[in-house]
Amino acid sequence: MDNNKIEKTLLKNIKKIIVVASGKGGVGKSTVAAGIAMRLASEGYSVGLLDADIYGPSVPLLFNMRGKRPFVVEKDGKSYLIPFISFGIKLMSIGFLIDDKQPVIWRGPKASSGLSQLINDTLWGELDYLIIDTPPGTGDIHITLLQNFDASGVIFVTNPQSMAMEDVEKAISMYKNETIGIPVIGVVENMSWFSPSKHPDEKYFIFGKDGGSKLAHDFNIPLLAQIPVNERVCASCDEGKMNELMADSQVYEAFGKLTDIIS
Amino acid sequence: MDNNKIEKTLLKNIKKIIVVASGKGGVGKSTVAAGIAMRLASEGYSVGLLDADIYGPSVPLLFNMRGKRPFVVEKDGKSYLIPFISFGIKLMSIGFLIDDKQPVIWRGPKASSGLSQLINDTLWGELDYLIIDTPPGTGDIHITLLQNFDASGVIFVTNPQSMAMEDVEKAISMYKNETIGIPVIGVVENMSWFSPSKHPDEKYFIFGKDGGSKLAHDFNIPLLAQIPVNERVCASCDEGKMNELMADSQVYEAFGKLTDIIS
Repeated sequence: MDNNKIEKTLLKNIKKIIVVASGKGGVGKSTVAAGIAMRLASEGYSVGLLDADIYGPSVPLLFNMRGKRPFVVEKDGKSYLIPFISFGIKLMSIGFLIDDKQPVIWRGPKASSGLSQLINDTLWGELDYLIIDTPPGTGDIHITLLQNFDASGVIFVTNPQSMAMEDVEKAISMYKNETIGIPVIGVVENMSWFSPSKHPDEKYFIFGKDGGSKLAHDFNIPLLAQIPVNERVCASCDEGKMNELMADSQVYEAFGKLTDIIS
Repeated sequence: MDNNKIEKTLLKNIKKIIVVASGKGGVGKSTVAAGIAMRLASEGYSVGLLDADIYGPSVPLLFNMRGKRPFVVEKDGKSYLIPFISFGIKLMSIGFLIDDKQPVIWRGPKASSGLSQLINDTLWGELDYLIIDTPPGTGDIHITLLQNFDASGVIFVTNPQSMAMEDVEKAISMYKNETIGIPVIGVVENMSWFSPSKHPDEKYFIFGKDGGSKLAHDFNIPLLAQIPVNERVCASCDEGKMNELMADSQVYEAFGKLTDIIS
């Protein structure tokens, strides 16, 4: 495979690659990546969303496309994947290529080549934005992404817990690395508070308070948004109803602010 | 290094190795691993807790030991690490060996050898139980653990969200693999519900309901415990006060049931 040629092809067709990373899993990174893609698409941009979480892909569930398999076409003697389109977003995920009940028991180098193939061998067409949802940690996938692809910037997602933030701090340090780093756009604090449906005026800071602000301050990066957690948000994600997620006014507003900063 | 010899030494000194895994991060796996160790130690067992989450170690934070460095001793011409002891538990973590602000940018093979060293080169002494807290996913660390060490069983941790459970299902499939698998002890559902402090009789199923039961049913494995989430639980973890975590009666009771099953 001629990596240089394919990389140039990518850059020609895709204006901006935005990486969404978190260091820690379970903080809503995939939801934030999908929400950014939804908002950008609704504003008229041409958007792709790549689920690069090789070990725990979420895009098939979030967009209610579990078990779907993409079409493959031949072009210049090479096979390419046709991305799915949902809410105007071009979607590709390792989850579309494997049995969703089977684990991906790959050692690092295989995971890296899997990622490169997903990016290079998908027919994205012309994109204003390719949003890449990455796995937790600072391992092979991230190293490959930073070394082999030319991303415009990275957005970090955290919840307010110290335990999450410690890992995010490490991920920020990696992405700020002088040799392989890229610009840090800012941090999104997810699961910031919970308002019980019976007591909508009360706010419970279950996972702690102002962790995102502290992180933003410590690393001198913008706090892009604070997103509440509630049963509707979780159910919308679990049921693959991204449109219902965006129907939550607090969530919609938070993503609006976020995409204003990116675009 | 003579791996066979070291493996036998391990087995001689350690009666049971219990792996705590999750597939997905951020579901409270480290807290559950630490809680199991706390309860077993309080019941008089000799317990070790190994934090094998190479990319996001949590044990230094959970036990309020950030920035501490273990003593190293020479024995038969080889260097060994002395584990820390907290609440009667012998603790070792990659977090004790690295700068807690720096990411571990290791490709898979290096992460695997790091894990083997942490297990083999720590002077555990005689243990009834070694609890191993693993990173999310089904990658290198898990493969190495299953191939090179003789674990008695694995406990899975999930929250009730479909998004978490999809990943846990994959991890269960991996651990049940005929070639490298080990017995599945059961599943712990964490963040099962939230009761607001002002309305203690109300239960909000923020992350969905009965996901753990469904998973247990689908895989024909026991549901070991359901653990609620609240500000106190999160704050106790964030502040490294594992004793305060266990002072929550609902949490204490849940871990009691859990360790009854293991021991």
